[in-house]
Amino acid sequence: MTAASPSILIVGAGAIGALYGSALSRQGTQVSVVCRSDYDHVQQHGYAIRSVVLGDHVFRPHAVLRDVSQRASPPDYLLLTVKVLPQVDRAALIKPAVGPDTVIVLIENGMDIEAEIAAAFPNNELLSALAFVQVSRTGQGDIVHQALGSLSLGRYPSGTTPAAQRLAALFDASQFNCALTDAVVTARWQKAVWNTAFNPISVLGGGLDTEMMLRTSDNQALIRRAMEEVCAAAAAAGHALHPKLVDRMIADTRALPGYKTSMAVDYENGRPMEIEAILGNVVRSGRKNGVAMPTLETLYALAQMVENRLNVPR
Amino acid sequence: MTAASPSILIVGAGAIGALYGSALSRQGTQVSVVCRSDYDHVQQHGYAIRSVVLGDHVFRPHAVLRDVSQRASPPDYLLLTVKVLPQVDRAALIKPAVGPDTVIVLIENGMDIEAEIAAAFPNNELLSALAFVQVSRTGQGDIVHQALGSLSLGRYPSGTTPAAQRLAALFDASQFNCALTDAVVTARWQKAVWNTAFNPISVLGGGLDTEMMLRTSDNQALIRRAMEEVCAAAAAAGHALHPKLVDRMIADTRALPGYKTSMAVDYENGRPMEIEAILGNVVRSGRKNGVAMPTLETLYALAQMVENRLNVPR
Repeated sequence: MTAASPSILIVGAGAIGALYGSALSRQGTQVSVVCRSDYDHVQQHGYAIRSVVLGDHVFRPHAVLRDVSQRASPPDYLLLTVKVLPQVDRAALIKPAVGPDTVIVLIENGMDIEAEIAAAFPNNELLSALAFVQVSRTGQGDIVHQALGSLSLGRYPSGTTPAAQRLAALFDASQFNCALTDAVVTARWQKAVWNTAFNPISVLGGGLDTEMMLRTSDNQALIRRAMEEVCAAAAAAGHALHPKLVDRMIADTRALPGYKTSMAVDYENGRPMEIEAILGNVVRSGRKNGVAMPTLETLYALAQMVENRLNVPR
Repeated sequence: MTAASPSILIVGAGAIGALYGSALSRQGTQVSVVCRSDYDHVQQHGYAIRSVVLGDHVFRPHAVLRDVSQRASPPDYLLLTVKVLPQVDRAALIKPAVGPDTVIVLIENGMDIEAEIAAAFPNNELLSALAFVQVSRTGQGDIVHQALGSLSLGRYPSGTTPAAQRLAALFDASQFNCALTDAVVTARWQKAVWNTAFNPISVLGGGLDTEMMLRTSDNQALIRRAMEEVCAAAAAAGHALHPKLVDRMIADTRALPGYKTSMAVDYENGRPMEIEAILGNVVRSGRKNGVAMPTLETLYALAQMVENRLNVPR
């Protein structure tokens, strides 16, 4: 890794990748992107980003690649920001760009999403990151960053490293606060409490935002039960969470304007949803440890039905 | 009540009302109907019925009324076949046609749907009936009867009566087997085991038929858990059901071709769904008796969200 300015390759540069890539690029780092669906547009025009933090601007990556294999030399950091879907082999996707010294950084949703990458690249440093951000792709190369933006970053499965510190410092300098954690799996469980409840319910309720999901006391009770089951699964997996976490998350969510989850946005656009990463892996972890999760089991079975339904012509 | 041939008024003659009205009319009974939405068409052309049991035929009621108050003399039997919805005051709807000797007969879905009518007409005989039938309205006055057709009938809250026997005999003669029961509330709970599971899941899964709902073992497990919770609520309400009922219902349903529930059909046509009658009343009964119903509670909260979503512009 060069001392002055690391090279960064973002694989799957949609909303998350473009926003953070732009932020890092402004710190003088060389940021290239791999983006398949918007390749022609981004290659020609870059990303048009409207951000509550960075302002309106155009982000022109150092290089725009259609495919990872087009990369000549391995990057210092490879940031993986693709959706975690059963049909996407993420290890195979990034393999051509991973050199012996490349630090792999996952900025992705879901639980237990690291093991597959750790197994495929046992000699590479693997960092896991959580993004607390509301950002959407609204069209070819068009990114709208509505709110928040902070990150949490640590070595997988635990600890921190100089490379993690360096990347966190770059994010911090870019106006996106990045907290280092030496317990990133616990942090991931904590985020799962929100994600695993709100995401499937937003879809099963017919495409709801957070305000709609918290409107009635029956609905709030459902969100709470789902969250508490995630806490129980987390505790059984050795990651006890703060006893007030659920209260705090519901109160915080109610204080913010209504927000559509990533799964609801995917659902409404007919795109595959991260059901396994966000919900299925939590359920499997709880099952393994004998945790009763009747609410999550119901949400999971229903979400699978919806996913299968979307793949069947009416 | 006349000895030879009773007069019958069917209020809310959609698919169910038209099919059974036609069957009774063929027995020489005088059958009139109140139908609001299809009034002009039915008044002019009658109902065009395609039935697996009665064959293709046209049913011309004795009288077609737009409103119950148009009825000059009270009928011997008033058959109520409207959907049970919170926004529909069924007692007020039928009041103008209920005479002192009118027998009120409910052929409607749901649990605990009788008490409201019993309270409004304490001096009238009240019969409660369950229809095991697949019949749909496919257009103005167009009725398609796909399968089944038997009925179960008893006095509410229990027992049988000569009027019940007489009506059952008329149905029997019409090729629709009608079983008399002296425990109609138990029979209603039994039907609820199927309805309360399959109806909301068919909607929440995105508009599924029974075959789709039973495709995977995870999905079957969900149906089974929901059914078992209804059985627990029934038992707690004093209506213990057969221990093999759930197994039998799932096996029977798998043996039949895929079938869309009434709630899924309503959902897909943007019509109000019988969430309270079919699901909410079961949940309330279970809650009152301290029954744990985590699956039904989840389905209920989600179904309410979907219903509210349908009433909010996107």
